[in-house]
Amino acid sequence: MLSGVGEQSPEGRSAPGAHGGPDVLLDPVELHGSVTDPVLASMTLLNDIVGRFPDAVSFAAGRPYEGFYAPESLARWLRLFERHLARDLGQGPEEIRRTLFQYGRTKGFIHRLIAAQLQQDEALAVDAESVVVTTGCQEAMVLALRALRRDARDVVMAALPAYVGFLGAARLVDMPVRGVRENADGIDLDDLQRQIRLARGEGLRPRACYVVPDFANPSGASMPAAARERLVELAARDDLLLLEDNPYSLFHAGGGRLPTLKSLDRSRRVLYFGSFAKAAFAGGRVGYVVADQPMTGGGLLADELAKLKSMLTLNTSTVAQAVIGGYLLENDCSLVRATTREAAVYRRNLRAVLHGLEKRFEAGTGVCWNVPRGGMFTVLTVPFRADDAMLEYSAREFGVLWTPMHHFYGGRGGFRQLRLSFSVLEPDEIERGLDRLAGLVADRTPVAQAAERFEPAG
Amino acid sequence: MLSGVGEQSPEGRSAPGAHGGPDVLLDPVELHGSVTDPVLASMTLLNDIVGRFPDAVSFAAGRPYEGFYAPESLARWLRLFERHLARDLGQGPEEIRRTLFQYGRTKGFIHRLIAAQLQQDEALAVDAESVVVTTGCQEAMVLALRALRRDARDVVMAALPAYVGFLGAARLVDMPVRGVRENADGIDLDDLQRQIRLARGEGLRPRACYVVPDFANPSGASMPAAARERLVELAARDDLLLLEDNPYSLFHAGGGRLPTLKSLDRSRRVLYFGSFAKAAFAGGRVGYVVADQPMTGGGLLADELAKLKSMLTLNTSTVAQAVIGGYLLENDCSLVRATTREAAVYRRNLRAVLHGLEKRFEAGTGVCWNVPRGGMFTVLTVPFRADDAMLEYSAREFGVLWTPMHHFYGGRGGFRQLRLSFSVLEPDEIERGLDRLAGLVADRTPVAQAAERFEPAG
Repeated sequence: MLSGVGEQSPEGRSAPGAHGGPDVLLDPVELHGSVTDPVLASMTLLNDIVGRFPDAVSFAAGRPYEGFYAPESLARWLRLFERHLARDLGQGPEEIRRTLFQYGRTKGFIHRLIAAQLQQDEALAVDAESVVVTTGCQEAMVLALRALRRDARDVVMAALPAYVGFLGAARLVDMPVRGVRENADGIDLDDLQRQIRLARGEGLRPRACYVVPDFANPSGASMPAAARERLVELAARDDLLLLEDNPYSLFHAGGGRLPTLKSLDRSRRVLYFGSFAKAAFAGGRVGYVVADQPMTGGGLLADELAKLKSMLTLNTSTVAQAVIGGYLLENDCSLVRATTREAAVYRRNLRAVLHGLEKRFEAGTGVCWNVPRGGMFTVLTVPFRADDAMLEYSAREFGVLWTPMHHFYGGRGGFRQLRLSFSVLEPDEIERGLDRLAGLVADRTPVAQAAERFEPAG
Repeated sequence: MLSGVGEQSPEGRSAPGAHGGPDVLLDPVELHGSVTDPVLASMTLLNDIVGRFPDAVSFAAGRPYEGFYAPESLARWLRLFERHLARDLGQGPEEIRRTLFQYGRTKGFIHRLIAAQLQQDEALAVDAESVVVTTGCQEAMVLALRALRRDARDVVMAALPAYVGFLGAARLVDMPVRGVRENADGIDLDDLQRQIRLARGEGLRPRACYVVPDFANPSGASMPAAARERLVELAARDDLLLLEDNPYSLFHAGGGRLPTLKSLDRSRRVLYFGSFAKAAFAGGRVGYVVADQPMTGGGLLADELAKLKSMLTLNTSTVAQAVIGGYLLENDCSLVRATTREAAVYRRNLRAVLHGLEKRFEAGTGVCWNVPRGGMFTVLTVPFRADDAMLEYSAREFGVLWTPMHHFYGGRGGFRQLRLSFSVLEPDEIERGLDRLAGLVADRTPVAQAAERFEPAG
C-alpha cells in the first residue's frame, strides 16, 4: 500500500468506528523509526512497570524533590515578574499585557535574568542575545541537534551510559549517536579521540560531543578540573563542538563546585544547556541554551536556533517564563541561594544511600557501587541480570523499583547494573527500600551463581 | 573539513573570543537545510522589515486582538484550576502540588476539559485519551509530521497558499509539501486527486493532506458543507489522512458555523488540531491534537505521538495548562461563549476592511479582493509586484505594512498579492491604513503599467 495508511483487512482488523464506518488502522512500522526505537519504547515499558506498583519504594523516579513545592508561589512569582516589567524595564500596562499574553520574542524574554544568574552562580559572562529560552532543556537539545544534522554524514558523540532524553532527542532528528567510554572521571578522553578518528575514517562528520560534567545521569560520574581543561582543548584541536548539559552541579555533596566547560571555553566551542527543572520546578518546562558561536554571515548560532524554534513551539510559554522570571527575581538571580534547602535534601539522601549500601553489602557479596560527589544518582553492579524482567520481579516480590542501566546504553551494555535515584525519597523510605533491595540480591545471587556454574560468562 | 565546524581561516575570519582565543566560526550552509530554507529565512526578513517601522499601520501582524487581555486573569484562572483539582478531581494537597509542579502526564492533564469543549462547541464526541495537549498547535503539527515521515518516499499535501507555520514544521522534519490548488471554496478537490495520482506515479507516498476548512490563513477561503463531505470521502477512498487545523471557525462573520471535517469523519481519517492561541491568549502556547486512529498493536495514534513528545518537550508546561484549564472552567468549557467579545471585534474589523476597500478601489483600478465569511484575513490582488522590496517601500513611503503572499506559496506564486490581517486593529487604524494603501496603489500602478508596455506578462 503506497500511502502507508493501512486499510482494514478482510480478516476483520477494523475497529468499530465512531460513526459506524470501518476505522483506519495504522501500523507503527509505517511511522518514523523513532516511534518503535528501543530508546523510546523502553521508556514507555519502564513507566508501565513503575505505574503498576504504586506502593513500591521507588528508586526509579528521576524527578526532583517535591517537599518544598507550594501552589501559592506561582501567583507570587507572577506578581514579582509583572512588577519587574513595570519598574525595572519601564513597561506600561499595554506593553505588560502584550509581554504576558501575546506571541513573543522567539528567544524569550527572561534572557537577561538568565545571563545575570550565569554571571552570579557560574562566573560566566554571556551575552543575553546568545541565550535561547526553550520549552525545557529538552527542546534546546532538539534544536541544537536538528541544526547540526545536515545530512547522513553528521553524527554526535556521547559518553555511554547517556541520559535517555539526549538519546531520544537525537533519534527524533535522525542523528546517530556514537558512544564513547565513560570511567569514574566522566568521559574517557582517549576513547573520545579514538572514536572521532574512527568516525572520520568512515567518512562521517562528528559534529559535537554531549557531556554532563557534574554528577551525570545515570552514572553520577564527575569530571575533575584537569579533565575539563583537556576536553575543551581537545574540542578546539579536533574541531568539535561540546554540548554541555548542567542540571545537577548545584547539588554537590559538600566538596564544592568545579568550573563549567563553558567557563573554560576560549574559542566558543561550547553550547551550554541549562534548566530550571531541578532548581525551581520540573513541570514548568523552562530551560535554555547559550549558543554564542558566531556565524559567517553575521549573528550568532542562537539566532539560527531561534529560526528553528519558531517552527517548533514559536516561543516558550509566556506564563511559564513569567513564573520562572519571578522565581529568579525572588532569589536575586542566584540558583545557588535559591536551592540551599534542596541541596541539603539531596546531600542527606546521597549520604543515606551510600551508608545504607555499606551496611548491607559487604565485600564478597558481589555487589559494588560508585561514590558520586553529588547529584541524584548512584549505580549498583549486581551479580545477576538486572533487566526489565528483573525489575518487574523486584517490584512484585520485594516491593522495590529501580532503573535497569541497559536503557542508558541503548541496549548495548549495563545488563548487570541498576540506577538508584534518591531525589524524591525521605530517609525512612531509603532504609526500607535498601532492605528490600538486599532481599532481592539475597534471592537472585544464588540462582545466578548456580546458572553460571553451567554457563560461565553468562 | 569533515566535522562541519569551520576553523578560523588565515584571512582573519575569526571574531574576538570571550577569553582572548580565536572563535569558532559556523557556516549556515553546514547546518540543517531548514536554517537557510526560504520559508524560515523569509519570515525572519519579514519580521525585520516590520520591526523597523513601528509607527506604520500594520496589516501584517497575524496576532490576535489584545484589547481584552488582563494580567489579573492569570492568577484567577490558576485558582479556578486548583479548586477544580480539589473539588472535581478529588486531589489532595500533595497530589495538587505534584500536578502543578512535577513532570507530568506526557499527553497533558486538561484533556478532559478539552474533550468537554469539543463536545459542547463542535458536537464532537472524542475520547479524552485521544487528546495530546501540546506546546501550541505548532508542536502538534511537528509531532504528526514527524510520525508520518518514515522515509524519503513520504510526502504531505497542502492547499497553496498555506500557513507558513505548517510549511516550516514540514521543513523541520524533512517532509516535502506537495502543493494543491485552492479556489474560493478552499482546497480544489479535483486537483488534490490529481496530485495524489501524480505523487504515487513518482513512487511517493502521500500520507496526509493539511486543511484549514474555515477562513484559512492566509486566503480567508472556507469550504462549503458539501465540499467537506466530499473531502472526507476522498480521504477514505484514496487512503489519506486529513490534518484539520481549526484556529478560526469561532470567528465567523455572522453566517454561522459549518461542521468540522472531524465531525463528518466516519473512519477516523482526520487528525484534528486545536489551539487556545486565538480564543484565550497566544503566548501561553497551549494547543492539542485529537489523534484517535487505532494502531495495529493496540492503543491510539495519540499514544505514539506522546512518545515523540516525551523526547521533544516532555510535557506541556503545567502552569500554562493550569491557566488554560481555569479559562475553560470559567467559561463552562465553551469557547463559543468565551469569545463573544473577540468574535464581535473580528466581525466589525472584517466589515470595516471590506467596506473600506469598496470605497477606495472601484472596478477598473485593477485591484480586487476576496470576501471571506469570517476570520482575520483577506487577500488583495494588485496590478504590481507586491514582494518584500515593495513592502519595504510601502512602509517607508506610505507608512503601511502588509504581508507579501509569495511567502505562503513557498516563493512559487502570489507575487501580485498581499495579505491584509486586521485582527489587532481599531476601526480608525483600519481607515488610516487603507488610505495609505490606496496611496501606494495610486503610486505604483502607473509605474507597473508603463513597465508592462515594454515587457508584457511581467
